[in-house]
Amino acid sequence: MSGAALAGTALADDITLTMNEIGRNARRASRALALASADRKKAALFAMAAALRAASGEILRENARDVEQARAAGQPASFIDRLFLDEARLEGIAQAVEAIAALTDPVGRVLATFERPNGLVIERVATPLGVIGVIFESRPNVTADAGALCVMAGNAAILRAGSDSFCTSSAIARAMASGLREAGLPEHAIQLVPTRDRAAVGAMLTGLNGCIDVIVPRGGKSLVARVQEEARVPVFAHLEGLCHVFVHERADLDMALAIVRNAKLRRTGVCGAAETLLVDRACAQTHLAPLVAMLIEAGCAVRGDEATCAVDARVVAATEEDWRTEYLDAIIAVRVVDGLDGALAHIAEYSSAHTDAIITDDQAAAERFLAEVDSAIVVHNASTQFADGGEFGFGAEIGIATGRMHARGPVGVEQLTSFKYRVRGSGQTRP
Amino acid sequence: MSGAALAGTALADDITLTMNEIGRNARRASRALALASADRKKAALFAMAAALRAASGEILRENARDVEQARAAGQPASFIDRLFLDEARLEGIAQAVEAIAALTDPVGRVLATFERPNGLVIERVATPLGVIGVIFESRPNVTADAGALCVMAGNAAILRAGSDSFCTSSAIARAMASGLREAGLPEHAIQLVPTRDRAAVGAMLTGLNGCIDVIVPRGGKSLVARVQEEARVPVFAHLEGLCHVFVHERADLDMALAIVRNAKLRRTGVCGAAETLLVDRACAQTHLAPLVAMLIEAGCAVRGDEATCAVDARVVAATEEDWRTEYLDAIIAVRVVDGLDGALAHIAEYSSAHTDAIITDDQAAAERFLAEVDSAIVVHNASTQFADGGEFGFGAEIGIATGRMHARGPVGVEQLTSFKYRVRGSGQTRP
Repeated sequence: MSGAALAGTALADDITLTMNEIGRNARRASRALALASADRKKAALFAMAAALRAASGEILRENARDVEQARAAGQPASFIDRLFLDEARLEGIAQAVEAIAALTDPVGRVLATFERPNGLVIERVATPLGVIGVIFESRPNVTADAGALCVMAGNAAILRAGSDSFCTSSAIARAMASGLREAGLPEHAIQLVPTRDRAAVGAMLTGLNGCIDVIVPRGGKSLVARVQEEARVPVFAHLEGLCHVFVHERADLDMALAIVRNAKLRRTGVCGAAETLLVDRACAQTHLAPLVAMLIEAGCAVRGDEATCAVDARVVAATEEDWRTEYLDAIIAVRVVDGLDGALAHIAEYSSAHTDAIITDDQAAAERFLAEVDSAIVVHNASTQFADGGEFGFGAEIGIATGRMHARGPVGVEQLTSFKYRVRGSGQTRP
Repeated sequence: MSGAALAGTALADDITLTMNEIGRNARRASRALALASADRKKAALFAMAAALRAASGEILRENARDVEQARAAGQPASFIDRLFLDEARLEGIAQAVEAIAALTDPVGRVLATFERPNGLVIERVATPLGVIGVIFESRPNVTADAGALCVMAGNAAILRAGSDSFCTSSAIARAMASGLREAGLPEHAIQLVPTRDRAAVGAMLTGLNGCIDVIVPRGGKSLVARVQEEARVPVFAHLEGLCHVFVHERADLDMALAIVRNAKLRRTGVCGAAETLLVDRACAQTHLAPLVAMLIEAGCAVRGDEATCAVDARVVAATEEDWRTEYLDAIIAVRVVDGLDGALAHIAEYSSAHTDAIITDDQAAAERFLAEVDSAIVVHNASTQFADGGEFGFGAEIGIATGRMHARGPVGVEQLTSFKYRVRGSGQTRP
């Protein structure tokens, strides 16, 4: 074995040892967190927010180092903007932590109660999940957001920050830990992985010998794909948000114009942004041209099927690939379909099961759409951009999940809990 | 490559092709099942029960073949007994399917509703999970039970029977398929893997290219361990039921005697059977000797710590291994612990997170135990043998899960569902 390979092995072993220790610390901390009262968790979050404000000088200094390195590495302006912090943005981060402290404690909620004929009273009661691994890219606010959400739900968090935000995330994590200490909670309840080495991600994906219960990736498609591919523990994620808006023959044109515009263009980079517009052939003559013109005039490129190309010379012909593309940009694919069945067939084939909407005044058509589209969020007569934990009233969210296990749709504090059964008897034995 | 190896590869390829086709068929069937009404699913289950009765001649003939082969292979009597069917047992299987048809349809339940300030009405509504893979050993009734439960929850099932019950399970599966056909549901909603080859299990554990959503193993510890180790999809299971009963210092002795006897000895082979008895040092002087005497006189071997050995000469000294052993037999490990804290520490170290019980008249101690023991089921003043979907009022169960994801405790039809969000608007766009 060459010297370099030997050194690499030694380094990998070091990282394995470090990560396993982080895992054990997290599991131990999670036991204390699981039993912490709502008041104590809230006190910790308020102390974290105060610590973030008190450490603003250090955090902004560390952020300046990250930004400088990212600039030197030639990162694009949009990347630098996501990374950059100033006093106002840091204050926003502190306030977001306080907003999480204002949520109802999801732990201990009695989800169901049933008394059995033999007198046993059985309750299903919410408990924390345990240890949550969060792997994210270069948005430094995630360190605070995700850490606070996990703690509020009684979980320990292991956070792996993007290497470009490593200095900023480390400074934020120190503030979070001091908040935990101040409230008398174990500081290992929020641990930042202390290395930029990507081997740490691989270690997390193995679950650290059973010390991670679930992984939440937050970032672009390649990160999520790697996590979904390699993780040996459950993952809460969506690979992409290939969201559809279907304009049914009985859609009000003005409502359709407003919703399609909002769903596509309010923010084009969010996962709830519409990527494909389906128009019912039965109303194409009246609705298609105005919808296409509105989009183009609002600055959106339109890639359409034959029928769509025919109504506006500015439409570019769509290819099969367009029905499969999450643009995350001011581009939309437009297709004319044969009624509700055509729309359902297109969505079944191409949707990423994130959020899909129908616009119609026909209640029966709406109900069929809501029942038959197998997506985490199905919408009638509203914008797909409501696909968001805040808009759902969940408060902050750690992400949106498209899987069918445990959490689906926006993942807020309630979705970061599990449950157990409490059985209360008076001496019952089973016959 | 040798001829034999080549033939092996060809066979493995065949099995991969077969299993992938089964997966695709199941996924297609699951879409139809997801939209099936409660009435249609119930009709299918009643038709299955009728078909099982009508096919009793064939099923019992096939069962006789399985039993003959198992005898020839030298399987023990307990194994043969689990495998054996007669008219009465087959009638029991048909009635169990009818009992599942009597359950409330878990699909479409509105789990939560919230109206947002902008007028959006958001519902969380139960949906099927999709495709469930069930891998089981030689109890032929599981073919009918598991298939019926999956269908009632709107899921397709892929069933892999133990090779010793292959003929019986195949005959039962044919009856189930004819019931599905009769009700107008796709017969691929219940598919039995048509080979004894163990490579089929490996294929299922990969998830069949995304065509299996969850795996449920039903069988002994080695089967569950293999599935948990190798599955690339979520698993609902418990590896073992290392259940504890803690007799607290304020336990009523008569109640303790009755509950411990029932928890250990009602049936020793079930996962909810107690394996370890913990006795509070503060009541050991009054409670330990009678508990030990009762157990021994009821035919139970006792393996005890020093304090337990001291009260009864018939007690055998326990080793560390005893605290970790699920006997599934008339053997119990007994240890004296220092109060509630000692019991909590022992349980945190050794419990399999299945079911643990406290016996006490002290409400505060009971509440601490119920809160702090991190098991799927925690019990106060009742037997651990109530750990059962039927006893919980869930109707039939497909098993008991000790994981924290999605399903925990008894897994009945409700736990075989997922959910989605239905959002109803009147033209809302997001500001």
